[in-house]
Formats: sequence, C-alpha cells, structure tokens
Amino acid sequence: MTDPTCTACSANWPGTDRFIADLSLTRVYLHEDQFFPGWAVLFLKRHATELFQLTKNERSQLIEDVNLVAKTLAKVYGAKKINYELLGNQLPHIHWHIIPRLATDPAPLEPVWRIEHEPVQLEPQGLQSQIQLIQKQLQS
Amino acid sequence: MTDPTCTACSANWPGTDRFIADLSLTRVYLHEDQFFPGWAVLFLKRHATELFQLTKNERSQLIEDVNLVAKTLAKVYGAKKINYELLGNQLPHIHWHIIPRLATDPAPLEPVWRIEHEPVQLEPQGLQSQIQLIQKQLQS
Repeated sequence: MTDPTCTACSANWPGTDRFIADLSLTRVYLHEDQFFPGWAVLFLKRHATELFQLTKNERSQLIEDVNLVAKTLAKVYGAKKINYELLGNQLPHIHWHIIPRLATDPAPLEPVWRIEHEPVQLEPQGLQSQIQLIQKQLQS
Repeated sequence: MTDPTCTACSANWPGTDRFIADLSLTRVYLHEDQFFPGWAVLFLKRHATELFQLTKNERSQLIEDVNLVAKTLAKVYGAKKINYELLGNQLPHIHWHIIPRLATDPAPLEPVWRIEHEPVQLEPQGLQSQIQLIQKQLQS
C-alpha cells in the first residue's frame, strides 16, 4: 500500500547509496547528515502516518525493527544513549530517526535539533565503510 | 525494579497534579509546559534506559501504551500529526514525549525543540479540566 503523493512512497529516497538493510516492516538508511555519527532512519515499507493506523501486530514488529537498529548502532558506535524519534512533520510517512549519542557529543543533554552545526556528508568510501560496519553487526 | 540514583524512580515526579493514567507498563502525565496543548509524557514503571534492555513482550506492551495515548490525544486535541520521542538525554529512564501538533502550531514543520517560546503553565482548574478530558477519552 503506497500513496502516490508521498515522497517516501514514490521516490527513490533517501537513496540507494545510503541503504543499510531490509528488515521486517522497514528499510534502514544512514542519514545524510553524519554530524552525529551513526544517525540512521527506518522507513515503513507501506504508507501510514501514525502508529494508530497500524495493526497491533505491525506495531509490535515495528518496535522490534527499531530495537534491532538501536542495539546495533549502540554496539558499533559505543553510544552512551540512543534517541528514538518518530516525527513526520515534514514527511508524514512513518519513519524513525535512531540517533546514537556518543561520548564525544558536543551537547549530550540536548535534543539533536537544538545543536547548530554544518551537516557532515561522508565521502563515498567513508559512507560505504560505515554502512558495512553496521551491516556486519546486524548479521551477528 | 528501581534505581535509587534515578530521579524518575525515587522522586514524586512529574507530580501527582499532572497525573493522567496508569497503563500497562507506564504512567502518563501532562507535560508541565503546555505551550503545545496536550503534550504528555509516559514513564516506564520499572527502571530501564534503552529499548534493548526490555523483553520483546515489554516492548510490545510499551508501544501499545504509546499508541493508546497518541490516539487519545489526537482525538481530544484534533491533532494534525503526533510526534513520538524517546530521548532520555537529561533523564536516562525510559519516558516518551507524545506531542500533538495542531492546526494552530506556530511552526508545524519543525521539531518542538526548535521552537523558542515561553513555557505555558496551566492554572490548577485548567490543568484538571485538560486531564479530565484526556481521561474520559482514554476510557471510551
């Protein structure tokens, strides 16, 4: 079930070069801004905007996808804390931001949205290296 | 299971005057800042800081609690979108911010953390009135 007016449904987005894994109900990508290393985004494969549009079974599978990615990123990046956010203000198609907060975080007490910074875009080789590290841990 | 060093475990917090409901694994409160009307917070009854410290069954129950509150707030406040956030940067005890985003939102495309504002504290009567509306919808 897709919505032809939805960017997440109709476009090849966030882009195959940032694709990490195909999970139960979601596809996982590395976020384009890697100022916070390991920031990943899980997109629901079907179109829905709110948790209460899903079945109970779907919510249960979805939170398992979220959990698997969080656990994986925590290990790969040695995170002190994970932030889990389902917003959809700009793109109302269920997607979770999973953000490892590291010991090197410039403002560990703040939500990432409050931390002004220049976006960090990885070079292709660095991007693939990060993705492979996450993929390896996901499979372990 | 509690942690005596944790504010959420040891203190009467966020305060009985903002208590809404006791759900499966969480207790729900109205957030002290009501600049975004209906902002609620769900605290896990036991101490844990990350989803991957819970059992699969607990995660499934937890997301049902989150869902019930989101669905309820969407109805009570006529929300256009719900934001669901599990952060814990300042208080590492699992708690979810469930934030209805209304048609009157001053910056509907932004996360709430980016919207500078003076906190809105409801008077006791207004506070209880909001809580009762939510409680009534929760029970319907």
